[in-house]
Amino acid sequence: MKSYRKELWFNSPTRRSFINITPEVNACLKESGIKEGFVLVNAMHITASVFINDDESGLHNDMEVWLERLAPEKPHNQYRHNTYEDNADAHLKRSVMGREVVVAITNGELDFGPWEQIFYGEFDGKRKKRVLVKIIGE
Amino acid sequence: MKSYRKELWFNSPTRRSFINITPEVNACLKESGIKEGFVLVNAMHITASVFINDDESGLHNDMEVWLERLAPEKPHNQYRHNTYEDNADAHLKRSVMGREVVVAITNGELDFGPWEQIFYGEFDGKRKKRVLVKIIGE
Amino acid sequence: MKSYRKELWFNSPTRRSFINITPEVNACLKESGIKEGFVLVNAMHITASVFINDDESGLHNDMEVWLERLAPEKPHNQYRHNTYEDNADAHLKRSVMGREVVVAITNGELDFGPWEQIFYGEFDGKRKKRVLVKIIGE
Repeated sequence: MKSYRKELWFNSPTRRSFINITPEVNACLKESGIKEGFVLVNAMHITASVFINDDESGLHNDMEVWLERLAPEKPHNQYRHNTYEDNADAHLKRSVMGREVVVAITNGELDFGPWEQIFYGEFDGKRKKRVLVKIIGE
Repeated sequence: MKSYRKELWFNSPTRRSFINITPEVNACLKESGIKEGFVLVNAMHITASVFINDDESGLHNDMEVWLERLAPEKPHNQYRHNTYEDNADAHLKRSVMGREVVVAITNGELDFGPWEQIFYGEFDGKRKKRVLVKIIGE
Repeated sequence: MKSYRKELWFNSPTRRSFINITPEVNACLKESGIKEGFVLVNAMHITASVFINDDESGLHNDMEVWLERLAPEKPHNQYRHNTYEDNADAHLKRSVMGREVVVAITNGELDFGPWEQIFYGEFDGKRKKRVLVKIIGE
């Protein structure tokens, strides 16, 4: 069994954003030389997500509006977590969108359907944060 | 390390449905001959889910009602994604229910608790769509 | 490839609770002797979750309030599942929070960011329930 590890770093200029990281994950896969196995891609921070969906800006806008409806940022004092912080909503949004994805590797490629793309979902940006790419296989 | 791959195909006659795919995943596991490892089961489309829950029709009805409340299908024009499409709600419902499950394999069996069953959750049906089953182990 | 399996048992005195199980998962990892690979930690019951978030009591209170807003327990008769049961809300809450996490193992350690902790989320307690820890790697 072979294994591979890399950290991807992000610094979103806005509090919230969705970043397509499929090219970076693909580059990791090529570098790993692994042909059959699983790749785990996870946010290393608890106010961010990694998820798979469509790379379509209208949908991303819908997701932003929808997540704000399910777990509004403001007023900050509606959350007990927000005594020294203001990011309780980011923890909740990340719970909806998920921490991680596991993707099959087949013949050295991400084994994807036609529209699957991997996104980093930032819900509390304006600082450096990381995603872990870990691959196991042969 | 051994690996195994199969696609399962579905064509739901309705826009939304929940289909128990545990027998199909079990058949894949037997065919693979893998005794210890992980099986990844994921929707290959971004308007569908794979999840684990109870095979109880009352609960499935509750889920349908609940997901419609969290992310209503109509009016279609409430979503920016719905300019050429009408399935933004399906992308959101899938975000709640998840893309994939990873299940342990022990002694050649799905290592499940008493009521765990694997479901394909279709949120934009009436066409052919796929689920990926990928197994790694020994 | 090596594999390791252990069940963790819980009996929450309250209907709902969040329990930090990171020490138990770490103990499994040490016992396994596995240095590189993946650990899968999943609820074996369909009214409970395993998830990764912050070990901060204010946030846990926010999560409890938020999940009750998204999927209220009462009135019990709002759910069709609740004919012989009263736990439909627990199935829905678990759908939001997720069944499982997959964590990378690097150099014999859980490969975590600064605040990541693994939680068992109980949504229908007052009875014995299990979590599965399965590790594969080398």
